[in-house]
Amino acid sequence: MRPTVSTSSRASALRRFVPLLDWSRSYTRETLSNDLIAAVIVTIMLIPQSLAYALLAGLPPEAGIYASIVPIILYAVFGTSRALAVGPVAVVSLMTAAAIGQVADAGTMGYAVAALTLAFLSGAVLLAMGVLRLGFLANFLSHPVIAGFITASGILIAASQLKHILGIPAQGHSLIAMIGSLIDNLGQTSTMTLILGVGATAFLFWVRKGLKPLLRRAGVGARAADIATKAGPVAAVAVTTALTWGLGLDAQGVAVVGSVPQSLPPLTLPSFDPALLRQLLVPALLISVIGFVESISVAQTLAARRRQRIDPDQELIGLGAANLGAAFTGGFPVTGGFSRSVVNFDAGAETPAAGAFTAAGLAIAAVALTPLVYYLPKATLAATIIVAVLSLVDFTILRKTWDYSRADFFAVAATILLTLGLGVEAGVSAGVILSIGLHLYKTSRPHVAEVGLVPGTQHFRNVNRYTVETAEHVLTLRVDESLYFVNARFLEDLIQDRTGGDTPLRHVILMCSAVNEIDFSALESLESINRRLTDLGIGLHLSEVKGPVMDRLRKSHLLQDLNGRIYQSQFDAWMDLTRRIKEPAA
Amino acid sequence: MRPTVSTSSRASALRRFVPLLDWSRSYTRETLSNDLIAAVIVTIMLIPQSLAYALLAGLPPEAGIYASIVPIILYAVFGTSRALAVGPVAVVSLMTAAAIGQVADAGTMGYAVAALTLAFLSGAVLLAMGVLRLGFLANFLSHPVIAGFITASGILIAASQLKHILGIPAQGHSLIAMIGSLIDNLGQTSTMTLILGVGATAFLFWVRKGLKPLLRRAGVGARAADIATKAGPVAAVAVTTALTWGLGLDAQGVAVVGSVPQSLPPLTLPSFDPALLRQLLVPALLISVIGFVESISVAQTLAARRRQRIDPDQELIGLGAANLGAAFTGGFPVTGGFSRSVVNFDAGAETPAAGAFTAAGLAIAAVALTPLVYYLPKATLAATIIVAVLSLVDFTILRKTWDYSRADFFAVAATILLTLGLGVEAGVSAGVILSIGLHLYKTSRPHVAEVGLVPGTQHFRNVNRYTVETAEHVLTLRVDESLYFVNARFLEDLIQDRTGGDTPLRHVILMCSAVNEIDFSALESLESINRRLTDLGIGLHLSEVKGPVMDRLRKSHLLQDLNGRIYQSQFDAWMDLTRRIKEPAA
Repeated sequence: MRPTVSTSSRASALRRFVPLLDWSRSYTRETLSNDLIAAVIVTIMLIPQSLAYALLAGLPPEAGIYASIVPIILYAVFGTSRALAVGPVAVVSLMTAAAIGQVADAGTMGYAVAALTLAFLSGAVLLAMGVLRLGFLANFLSHPVIAGFITASGILIAASQLKHILGIPAQGHSLIAMIGSLIDNLGQTSTMTLILGVGATAFLFWVRKGLKPLLRRAGVGARAADIATKAGPVAAVAVTTALTWGLGLDAQGVAVVGSVPQSLPPLTLPSFDPALLRQLLVPALLISVIGFVESISVAQTLAARRRQRIDPDQELIGLGAANLGAAFTGGFPVTGGFSRSVVNFDAGAETPAAGAFTAAGLAIAAVALTPLVYYLPKATLAATIIVAVLSLVDFTILRKTWDYSRADFFAVAATILLTLGLGVEAGVSAGVILSIGLHLYKTSRPHVAEVGLVPGTQHFRNVNRYTVETAEHVLTLRVDESLYFVNARFLEDLIQDRTGGDTPLRHVILMCSAVNEIDFSALESLESINRRLTDLGIGLHLSEVKGPVMDRLRKSHLLQDLNGRIYQSQFDAWMDLTRRIKEPAA
Repeated sequence: MRPTVSTSSRASALRRFVPLLDWSRSYTRETLSNDLIAAVIVTIMLIPQSLAYALLAGLPPEAGIYASIVPIILYAVFGTSRALAVGPVAVVSLMTAAAIGQVADAGTMGYAVAALTLAFLSGAVLLAMGVLRLGFLANFLSHPVIAGFITASGILIAASQLKHILGIPAQGHSLIAMIGSLIDNLGQTSTMTLILGVGATAFLFWVRKGLKPLLRRAGVGARAADIATKAGPVAAVAVTTALTWGLGLDAQGVAVVGSVPQSLPPLTLPSFDPALLRQLLVPALLISVIGFVESISVAQTLAARRRQRIDPDQELIGLGAANLGAAFTGGFPVTGGFSRSVVNFDAGAETPAAGAFTAAGLAIAAVALTPLVYYLPKATLAATIIVAVLSLVDFTILRKTWDYSRADFFAVAATILLTLGLGVEAGVSAGVILSIGLHLYKTSRPHVAEVGLVPGTQHFRNVNRYTVETAEHVLTLRVDESLYFVNARFLEDLIQDRTGGDTPLRHVILMCSAVNEIDFSALESLESINRRLTDLGIGLHLSEVKGPVMDRLRKSHLLQDLNGRIYQSQFDAWMDLTRRIKEPAA
C-alpha cells in the first residue's frame, strides 16, 4: 500500500477512466473543422436511421432520436475509440423488440418503460464487466457464430419490416411466426403503401448499387459521389414524405410516423420492479455481449487503420455509460454501429468531439425538424432498414467453415437455424454452447502421434507422415493436447493399449511439447500410468516439459514416484535411452 | 455397404453387446465354485445394506432387496466387468431421495412410483448414452470434483441418518436444513433408540478399526479376520434385532423395520406422465452420470488388477439394463457399488455369474428371511450407513489441490460447499460448470514464451528461464495453447504489442509445437496479423506446425497469403532467417 498518491499518478488514473481528458489537450482548430464536417454528414444519415430503428424496436420514433443524443455524449467522455458512433443499431433493436415483447405489449406505456429498464440493465452489466475487467467474456463468441448470428438477424429484421411495406399487422420473433402472421393478414394489404414501400426499396437498392458508378461516369468526384450515395435514405424520406403530404396518401391507408413531440430528450426513469428486472436480466446480458462484440470489432478495425489502440475494458465502461444515459433520457439499448462509424471515420472524424457535435445536430433536429416527419410513411423507414440489413446477410461463412472445419460449420449452421427458427436469444446461446461443447469434445480425444527422429537433425516427427528413425525398445508418444480432466482417462487407455501384450518395449517417452497444462485429474492419471508401467517393467519418461508445467509438477509427488527421468529435450531422451538399451547388449 | 453379413461377424457383434455369450463358453467347475463362494459372502453383506439404502432413499425396506435382484442379473448379461456388484448405493440413494422428495411425499404411493420412474429414466438415459457412444461425457467430471462431491455426499448422508439414531422426525436436502430440522425436534428424542443407535455405531466403528488387529493378534488368519470384519453389520443387525424382540423395545419408542412382504420382486410399472418425466429428467441425468462414474471407476480399478478390459460404452448399456430392470421390479436407481464390488472381487468372483448367484441368494432372503427383520431397529440400519459413508469423507483433496492447482481447488471447494449448502444437484452441476469455465479462462490467456536456441543443440527454450542465443532481428514466440476462438483476439493483441514502436525486428516466427488446433476464428486472426505485419515490413513465419493442423491450413488461403514461410523445424527457421539477415550486411 502506498501511503500517498502523487498528483500526476492520480491525474493519469483519471485520464485512464476519462479518455476525454487525454485527447482534449491536443485539440486544434483543424481537428475541430474535421470533426464538424464528419458530424454534419453523420447527423444527416442518422435522422432516418434513428427513426427506423425505433420502429424496429417497436417504440415511438422519437425514442430513436433520444437514444442518439445523450448516449453519444457519454461515450465521447468515457470511450476509447476516436471514430465509433454510438446509437440504436439494427441487431440490438431487434433483440430489444424480442426481449420486451415478452413482458409488455408494443405501444403501451409498459413497453416503453421496459425498453428503458432493458437499457438500464445493459448499462449496468456493461459497466460491471468493465470494472471487473471481464471483457474477455466476449471471446466466448467465435467469429463464425457471430457471422452466422448477424446473417440470421439480418434476415429476421428484413422479414419483420415486410408488414410495414405491405401495410398490414403482423408479429412474431421467429422467421416462421413472422411469415405465418404475414400470410394470415395478406388480404388487408394496402395498395398505396405497397407501391410506396416497393418504390422506396427499389430506389435505395439502386442508390446503393447503381448511383455511384453513374455519377462517376458523369464526371462527379469520388468523395461527392460517395456522399450522394449516403444521402440516398434522406432523399427517399424527403420524396415519399412530400408525396404523402401532397397527395394525401395518409387518408388512403398509408401509415405515417405522425406527430412527434418537439422536445429535447426528456428525463425518464427505468422500472426497478424486481420481477421485471429478473425477467430482463438474461436478455440484457445477451444484448450487452452482442452489442459489445459488434462495437469492439468496429472500433478495433478503425483504430488499426490509424495505429491507435482500443482498451476493451474501458470500452465496456464507455458503452455502459451510454446505455445508462439512454435509460434516463427516453431511449433504449444502444451500441457502436458499424455503418455509421465507418461513415464517421471516412468523413474525417478525428476525436470523440465529432460524436458530441452529432449529438448537438440531433438535438436541433429533435426540437426543430420533428414536425416535418409527420407525413413520413413507415414504409419508407422499413425500406431503409431492409436495404441496410440485407447487406449484413452473408451465407459464405457456411461454405468457408464447411471447407475449413466441420466443428465451426456445425456451430454456425446451428446458430443460423436456431436464430431463424426460435429467435435471437436461442440462436446466440446455442452458438456459444455448441462452440464450447465441440471444443471440449475435440480435446477429449486428442491427436496422438508416435514420433521418430528425422535423420540428420535433432527433430522428431510423426512416424506415419515422415521417414524417421525409431527403435523397438523405445516408444515416443507426442500427445497433442493439454492433459486435463476431459482427456485424463483417454491417456490411461491409450498407454494401456500401446503397452499391452508381448512387447519388446522397455521405455515409453511422453513428449510434452504440446502439453500446456497438467491438471490434478491428469496428474492422478499419470501416477496411475506410472504404477502400471512399473508393474510391467517399462520405464516412463517425460521430455520437453514446459516451464510452467514443470513448476507445478515440482509441487506434486510425481517427480519422486516416476520410475524414469525427465529430459529437457526429446533428442536428449532418445540418445540416452537408445544408448542404455544398446550398452547391456554390447 | 456389405450386402451379406457372415454368420461369424453377426455372432461376434452379438457377443459384443451380450458379453455373457463370451465368458460363458469357458465356464468351468472351478470357476463355478469360486463364483459361489463370492456370492455367499456378498449376499450376507448385501442384506442389511439393501435395507439401509432403501431407508436412505425414503422407500420401504423391501425396495432395497428388490433393487438387488433383477438388476444384478441384467448386469451379468450385458455388463463387461467381471467383478462389479450392482445394486443400491449410498450416493445414488441420497440423490434419489433428493430428486423424488421434490415431486412426492415420502411414504406415499406416489413416492414409490416416482422412484420407479426415476430408475426408468436413468436406465433410458444410460442406454441411450451407450448406444450413442457418449461414455466420454463422464469425463466432464474432473477427479477433484468427484472427490469433493463424494465427501460432501458422505457428510449429507450421515447427517440424514441422525434422525434415526435419535428417533425423531427430520427432513431437508441440504446440511443446514437437516441440522435445523433435527434441532427443532431434539426434544422428542427417544432414549432407547439413542442407546441402541449409538451402541450400534460404536460397535461398527470398532469392528472396522479394532477387530481385525485383535483377531490377527489372537492368531486368526488374515482372510478369516477379513470376513469377520465384513460380517460386523450382520452381527449388529442380529444382536439389536434380538434385543428389541426380547425386551419389547418397539413398544418403548424404538422404530423398527416392521412387516416386509414375503415375496419375489413384484412386476411394477413406472409412471409415463409427461409432467413427471419432465420434472425428473435432469435429476435422472445427474444420477446416471454420477452412477456411471462411480461404477466405471470401480470396474476399471478391479479389471486392471487382472489385466482385463472394460468397455465404457458397453458398461452404459449394462447399467442401463440394470436400471430398467429396477424400474419394472419394484426397485429404485442402482449402480455398481464400490465396497460390495471390492468384497466380491476379494472373495474370488471370476465371472458375472457370481452376481447371478448373489441375486438368487437375495431372492431366497426376500422369500424366507423377511419375517426375521420385523424387529430390526431402523437405528441399526442408520448406524451401518453412517459407518459406511464416513469412510467416503476425505478432505485431503482440498489440501492436495490447493498445493497443486488453485483452479482445481476452487472447483472442489465450490462443489463441497454447494453440495452441503444447496444439495447434491446444485453441487455437482456447479462443479462441472466451474471446472469447464476455469479451463476455458486459462486457455483464453495462454502462456507465451519468447524462445532462443540452447547453445550446442537444435533445441529452443524460454529466454527467461534458460541461457539461450537470440537475435534482435528475429523474434520467436512459442504460444503454449491451441489457437481457437477463446484466445484469437489475445494473439492479435500480443503480436501488436510485441511489434509496436521503433524496432529492428525483421521476422516473427510463431513456433507452433504447442498449437494443437487452429480454428476458423484463429485462422482469421492469423490472416489479420499477417496483413498488419506485411504493412510494417515484418515477415511472419510458422515453424513446427503439426500434421493435422497443416492439413487444415492447406484448405485455407493463409498459406498463399502468408508473407513468410512455413518451416518444418524451429531450427531450420532460425538458421534460414538469421542467415538471411547476415547476408545483406556481409
